[in-house]
Amino acid sequence: TINGSRLWQSLMDMATIGATPKGGVCRLALTDLDKEGRDLFVRWCEEAGCTVTVDRIGNIFARRPGRDPDLPPVLMGSHLDTQPTGGRFDGVYGVLAGLEVIRSLNDLNYETDAPVEVAVWTNEEGTRFAPSMVASGVFAGEFDLEYGLSRADMDGRTVGEELARIGYAGDAPVGNRPLTAYFEAHIEQGPILEAEGKTIGVVTDAQGQRWYEITLTGQEAHAGPTPMARRKDALVGAARVVEAVNRIGFTHQPGACATVGLMQIHPNSRNVIPGRVFFTVDFRHPDDAVLARMDAELRAEVARIAAETMLDAEMEQIFYYAPVRFEESCVAAVRKGVERTGHSWRDMVSGAGHDACYVARVAPTAMVFIPCVDGISHNEVEDATPEWCAAGCEVLLLAVLEKAVR
Amino acid sequence: TINGSRLWQSLMDMATIGATPKGGVCRLALTDLDKEGRDLFVRWCEEAGCTVTVDRIGNIFARRPGRDPDLPPVLMGSHLDTQPTGGRFDGVYGVLAGLEVIRSLNDLNYETDAPVEVAVWTNEEGTRFAPSMVASGVFAGEFDLEYGLSRADMDGRTVGEELARIGYAGDAPVGNRPLTAYFEAHIEQGPILEAEGKTIGVVTDAQGQRWYEITLTGQEAHAGPTPMARRKDALVGAARVVEAVNRIGFTHQPGACATVGLMQIHPNSRNVIPGRVFFTVDFRHPDDAVLARMDAELRAEVARIAAETMLDAEMEQIFYYAPVRFEESCVAAVRKGVERTGHSWRDMVSGAGHDACYVARVAPTAMVFIPCVDGISHNEVEDATPEWCAAGCEVLLLAVLEKAVR
Ligand SMILES: NC(=O)NCCC(=O)O
Ligand SMILES: NC(=O)NCCC(=O)O
Repeated sequence: TINGSRLWQSLMDMATIGATPKGGVCRLALTDLDKEGRDLFVRWCEEAGCTVTVDRIGNIFARRPGRDPDLPPVLMGSHLDTQPTGGRFDGVYGVLAGLEVIRSLNDLNYETDAPVEVAVWTNEEGTRFAPSMVASGVFAGEFDLEYGLSRADMDGRTVGEELARIGYAGDAPVGNRPLTAYFEAHIEQGPILEAEGKTIGVVTDAQGQRWYEITLTGQEAHAGPTPMARRKDALVGAARVVEAVNRIGFTHQPGACATVGLMQIHPNSRNVIPGRVFFTVDFRHPDDAVLARMDAELRAEVARIAAETMLDAEMEQIFYYAPVRFEESCVAAVRKGVERTGHSWRDMVSGAGHDACYVARVAPTAMVFIPCVDGISHNEVEDATPEWCAAGCEVLLLAVLEKAVR
Repeated sequence: TINGSRLWQSLMDMATIGATPKGGVCRLALTDLDKEGRDLFVRWCEEAGCTVTVDRIGNIFARRPGRDPDLPPVLMGSHLDTQPTGGRFDGVYGVLAGLEVIRSLNDLNYETDAPVEVAVWTNEEGTRFAPSMVASGVFAGEFDLEYGLSRADMDGRTVGEELARIGYAGDAPVGNRPLTAYFEAHIEQGPILEAEGKTIGVVTDAQGQRWYEITLTGQEAHAGPTPMARRKDALVGAARVVEAVNRIGFTHQPGACATVGLMQIHPNSRNVIPGRVFFTVDFRHPDDAVLARMDAELRAEVARIAAETMLDAEMEQIFYYAPVRFEESCVAAVRKGVERTGHSWRDMVSGAGHDACYVARVAPTAMVFIPCVDGISHNEVEDATPEWCAAGCEVLLLAVLEKAVR
């Protein structure tokens, strides 16, 4: 019922915007390339007869009207921004699968009762502006608008400034409107579906996350004449925290993930003992109680390491959300959809955060996963097959119809 | 006999070029600020009646003629470039102490037999372009000119291009000319003189150095859904190497220094497992045999860590020189000078590399150290007193006269 090759073609067209030599995509949130991607999406939606609105944090909503103007819309969507070395599917798949659902409904001349919408959420990745999912978070009332607009990148440019610059500071209010349901299709970004030979993941839960920023401060000094015993080497301290983070991740198996992804060394000169190191920690676990234990262990380790290395430590948790349980009737709609298609499937827990995790706070929500090759994501080699993409889109269509038709 | 307040004033004037808010200086090699510093130096030298020449790698020589045109010059000098968070004395002190010697000779209308010159060596610090002391190295025949000109910064701009851009690609041949002697005055950059209450260090030796570049490559992947056991986290490997480098430094006490000063994480995103980390290692020891043992230990540790973390390791030693012994008659000239001034002194080994380490290969060479506050250098708080600066300059003058007058 959906057109798999049209979906694939749109994915490949979008992937040319920010294409990298290694076959990936670098389309950071609110850059010129993000604007180009948004413009293309808006054009496609208008060609499909949708009405497009943009809210004050740059979320885009493309609406196909329903028969009953009183029914709140069924929303689909995901994001168009990517990691610096991102792939062609993370985020964009959920957006274009949503568009393909609308195009297919058009082809069939099918009128739903509730309107059907596709959303593009601003800055889902959290790589240019931390934290991730900030704009769906504002939509869901987790963050206030001011907080969202004031997030700054490493050069100090804010979400608000960059939205204005690329022309996506809309005037629609953010959130505060009823939704019948929200469905987000996404690649799994992990190895489970492919390893088990399953085509569809019915996502019942998403694990909780805590993000931290840590700064260790010692004293810059000359790498030559400064005796080892007199040093306050911030990188030696940071290295020990990296090791501790990794150990905490292994301690809380199965389930825990623990990562230092970003680190900045100051002054970063070959013959200068580093005086200051800034780095981030990303903790995840499906069980909130374990996540809290990981938090306590990290705090203890940072204090211990700072003391033993004679460094000052500043540590801030900048982002937290508890594990998410998706809404039963939406999950059931996805299960019913996949059963009708005949694709193999399993229930699963999302390892990544998704805009659905915030939208779930204000609307009945569920997710549809498809596999990705070798479980690799946030990498230019990220890959998926046209068949998987089509299968997930079929399931998305059926789940949407389940909710949008009385 | 020298004018301490004039020397201090010149130091403070030069320190305004690239001054940082914290009272230090950032005047990286071959930047616009380096050009400004060079221009000021050249103007001062011309006002002092010197003839200025610039060689093909941008070394500047300001010459005060002697009575005997057949005698090779006695050279003084050091460098004007700084670390990113450098101080007001490292390098510039040796240059301006040399200029003060010439100004003092002018004041006294004193004619030496040999000409007296002051050198400014290009890119001593090695922070913008690695390795350090590259231009005195070319002068001394350690590196060929092509190698020196092709050193590139992190943005790929080369020494040759940047020399041309700032107008300091001179046409004098590099080196290959006789010198009667070379004397370099410098702050100690370590804690020994101040701790012992000595004003002057007579530098007899400089420790050897080895610099390395190491790249660990794993696989970028999503920090959320990628199980700990499947990861190839390049930063976990790098953290272990940082710890190993630090351990090697402590193992070979007294004397060893071991530092990771520079590290770049790729793609450096909070929720991406780092796929590649590039970093440098700086090893020093006064005994070449110990330095060789440190080298062997590092190679073994990198191989072991790469294997246990499932990473690929590339490692290159990009810079090496054996410990340096300065020339006896020049060291004696410094000792004789300091004895005549009555300042307290001791013999010492330089922990830092200096242009003198390379010039020592082609000319009789020695160095004069003065203390610096708390032994801190390569830091914006680097400090020295006007009295120390004047004392070192007096000793420099007397050592120069010892060699420049028959
Ligand atoms: N899906 C996805 O890659 N989201 C980025 C936010 C996260 O780190 O989980
Ligand atoms: N004197 C000085 O700071 N030189 C820089 C080269 C080094 O020793 O690392």
